[in-house]
Amino acid sequence: MKYAHSLEFSVRDYECDMQGVVNNGAYQNYLEHARHEFLLSKGISFSEMVENRINLVVIRAELDYLDSLKSNDHFTVCSNIRKISRLRFEFSQDIFRIPDQRHMLQAKIIGTSLNQRGRPFVLTELSRLYDK
Amino acid sequence: MKYAHSLEFSVRDYECDMQGVVNNGAYQNYLEHARHEFLLSKGISFSEMVENRINLVVIRAELDYLDSLKSNDHFTVCSNIRKISRLRFEFSQDIFRIPDQRHMLQAKIIGTSLNQRGRPFVLTELSRLYDK
Amino acid sequence: MKYAHSLEFSVRDYECDMQGVVNNGAYQNYLEHARHEFLLSKGISFSEMVENRINLVVIRAELDYLDSLKSNDHFTVCSNIRKISRLRFEFSQDIFRIPDQRHMLQAKIIGTSLNQRGRPFVLTELSRLYDK
Amino acid sequence: MKYAHSLEFSVRDYECDMQGVVNNGAYQNYLEHARHEFLLSKGISFSEMVENRINLVVIRAELDYLDSLKSNDHFTVCSNIRKISRLRFEFSQDIFRIPDQRHMLQAKIIGTSLNQRGRPFVLTELSRLYDK
Repeated sequence: MKYAHSLEFSVRDYECDMQGVVNNGAYQNYLEHARHEFLLSKGISFSEMVENRINLVVIRAELDYLDSLKSNDHFTVCSNIRKISRLRFEFSQDIFRIPDQRHMLQAKIIGTSLNQRGRPFVLTELSRLYDK
Repeated sequence: MKYAHSLEFSVRDYECDMQGVVNNGAYQNYLEHARHEFLLSKGISFSEMVENRINLVVIRAELDYLDSLKSNDHFTVCSNIRKISRLRFEFSQDIFRIPDQRHMLQAKIIGTSLNQRGRPFVLTELSRLYDK
Repeated sequence: MKYAHSLEFSVRDYECDMQGVVNNGAYQNYLEHARHEFLLSKGISFSEMVENRINLVVIRAELDYLDSLKSNDHFTVCSNIRKISRLRFEFSQDIFRIPDQRHMLQAKIIGTSLNQRGRPFVLTELSRLYDK
Repeated sequence: MKYAHSLEFSVRDYECDMQGVVNNGAYQNYLEHARHEFLLSKGISFSEMVENRINLVVIRAELDYLDSLKSNDHFTVCSNIRKISRLRFEFSQDIFRIPDQRHMLQAKIIGTSLNQRGRPFVLTELSRLYDK
């Protein structure tokens, strides 16, 4: 599969819980950071948007946990974005362990853009991203 | 709807991000804590199981973000558990804001139990919980 | 010792790391939440201040880790505040395990208030708090 | 100043709070990750030690917050380690923003090693590290 963006991470030990593996909640952190870096690489700064009171928000997250990342693991978060309705976009994100490329997590993150009044609207900069 | 367990929380400011609302990832933390307290109220201690090298693991999470929790908000996480196959169980979890009972998040968390060799198995204590 | 504020917590399992105890970093989260609730109990809302672009910031933290909190532990964070210079205040915070009152952590958190231009200033609401 | 180890990071947006800057608690996470990578670079794996029931623990942390990291910032955590008593070691850690080398945080983290019975002991691998 081809991805529009990929970002490498190392597991940090504070992300692991008493089971000795990365805690479930930490994966959403990984995915968020990868999405924001993806957007930034396309000229869209999440924090600048927040300053302009434009908010990208997640409205649905689906995560399939396929295997567990552990201390000292390295991995890549690979991301694609596509439009799924006039106002909604979907990130497909996969996590692969390095170097064996084992598929650790598969996610779909559906989001929308909210304008200064908190209403969904079409963010032109995003449209440019997936209308290709 | 009737829930088998409910637990009250207060938003903690460090859980909020630059958008001024609770970060998406923090909801998985709330849900996990509510599930573990639910189990504990039924005599199942997550940490004791870990010590015995029995691991309850999440294999899929679906989260619908309906509205955003903010600083100073109070809320309840309500949980049910049911069996969905011989080896898998599903927690249905809902977050309601206090005091207006606004529905903030709806989630389905599918899990399984792994024995000392890392193989899925039927954890009798859990079966007792949902075979009612 | 007498404290101006105390707040009860339960350890959440996601706060524990692979050592099976609460991760060092999580204590700062506990302390922050206790400070913000302390202030709120005195009519000072951290988030309202942020909206008015007034920022309470930590400039120094000293934490002595005396013993480790574990899964299923309950504890109290006890807090006092005092003025240490015209522009600086200090929270003394202690964590005691429930029910044995074992002293788990001792902290000093020094902070200041920044006005809309990011300059330290005397926040009258805070002065009222410790000028007693 | 010369450092025995340095590690580059990027601020992740979920680490920022409603003030729009990295939350105080997140710095301890950065410092911990840098220490563990430092040790790993010298052949000491924190997680392997935990598996062998040897625990490196923090007993005191002093953090001076000099300036605030923000969204999109890059920074380096620089670390040294030295022995301060037979059983205790101290990490000196500094955070510098990239590329302007602004000093953002200065920390001293004092720790000790606990053996399988939870007693402080001299971990030979660590001694080798600072007896130079």
